[in-house]
Amino acid sequence: MSNDQWHDVVESREAQRRKKRQAVIETGVRLFNENGFEKTSLDDLAKSLGITKRTIYYYVQCKDEILAEALRQSIQALERIAWTVENDTCSAVDTIEVIIDAYARWIATDLGACLVLTRENMLTDEVRVELRATKQQLDRLIRKAVTEGIEAGEIRETCDPRLTSAAIFGALNWVPYWNRGSTPTPASDISDQFKRSFIQGLRR
Amino acid sequence: MSNDQWHDVVESREAQRRKKRQAVIETGVRLFNENGFEKTSLDDLAKSLGITKRTIYYYVQCKDEILAEALRQSIQALERIAWTVENDTCSAVDTIEVIIDAYARWIATDLGACLVLTRENMLTDEVRVELRATKQQLDRLIRKAVTEGIEAGEIRETCDPRLTSAAIFGALNWVPYWNRGSTPTPASDISDQFKRSFIQGLRR
Repeated sequence: MSNDQWHDVVESREAQRRKKRQAVIETGVRLFNENGFEKTSLDDLAKSLGITKRTIYYYVQCKDEILAEALRQSIQALERIAWTVENDTCSAVDTIEVIIDAYARWIATDLGACLVLTRENMLTDEVRVELRATKQQLDRLIRKAVTEGIEAGEIRETCDPRLTSAAIFGALNWVPYWNRGSTPTPASDISDQFKRSFIQGLRR
Repeated sequence: MSNDQWHDVVESREAQRRKKRQAVIETGVRLFNENGFEKTSLDDLAKSLGITKRTIYYYVQCKDEILAEALRQSIQALERIAWTVENDTCSAVDTIEVIIDAYARWIATDLGACLVLTRENMLTDEVRVELRATKQQLDRLIRKAVTEGIEAGEIRETCDPRLTSAAIFGALNWVPYWNRGSTPTPASDISDQFKRSFIQGLRR
């Protein structure tokens, strides 16, 4: 057994710490989504994780840090969706399908849901600007796809790119408001249904 | 000129008072929607109406009364939509069209938008219960129409009634979040586009 292999037997302390911090972030944001940021205390979080509040302070300084980190990760996930679409050479309809699928799967997670459930006035200016830019980027990609789809004869001419994008993101952003509780609808079911329904609504 | 006609020349004091009170409610709720309930003062409202704060007190006691009255009127409007649909004998697809059209036109008004822009914790228990019941009623009507439309062969069998309704109301409830500013998209355009897109997405 080489030196490298010996060290790989267990994860490094740093890797373990990262995973535990991520558990704090994800459980924190789940509680914020369920009960609201103001109504959630670090005591609630400690109880939910089965650890002491003192242990939490080893990973984060305060509630705000949890929310900020959750929003940062969530915006990055949307940026990755936009990046993937921009660097792909799909047809217009396929592009719209890819965005609906990826966005539905993300918004159905706790980190995804915090993007719509966090009140506007809880966002720092920096996060607000970044979130708006990322949403606008995805909105532009759908509009562009609709326009190109009409030109290519794939999409009906009566489809308004702006209103089509608004309907799609409205339906998707509304998911965290109704898909709660102990047995939420799987993201894949939501994605399949929304893709089918919106794409059939667009096709010539 | 008869006595009755003489009195009809000008509106009664009571009718004038009702109209002025309604102007206070509608302007108030517009400001709440634009700037948030907490950030809107009765001074802002007086300024916006070009009257004194003292005059406002002749019509309402406080900000809370404005919001409560706006929500009451808005819920009643949704109840009327549900009532109309329940007492009509349209086909499944026509029923869905009627709901999309009426809901789009209502949600695009200031009174309609306050239903989604007012934060949950601003609602009294009574209003919360009533609003939820009315929304559930409309949701049930769409689901029922989808189920019946599938049975009648009008709607594709792959349409899930629950997810179809969620997509429609998501798209509609999202309208107040993007359709702001000085030149909002007319409600009729939103309604036409959403009807076309959702109905084509449903049809066999």
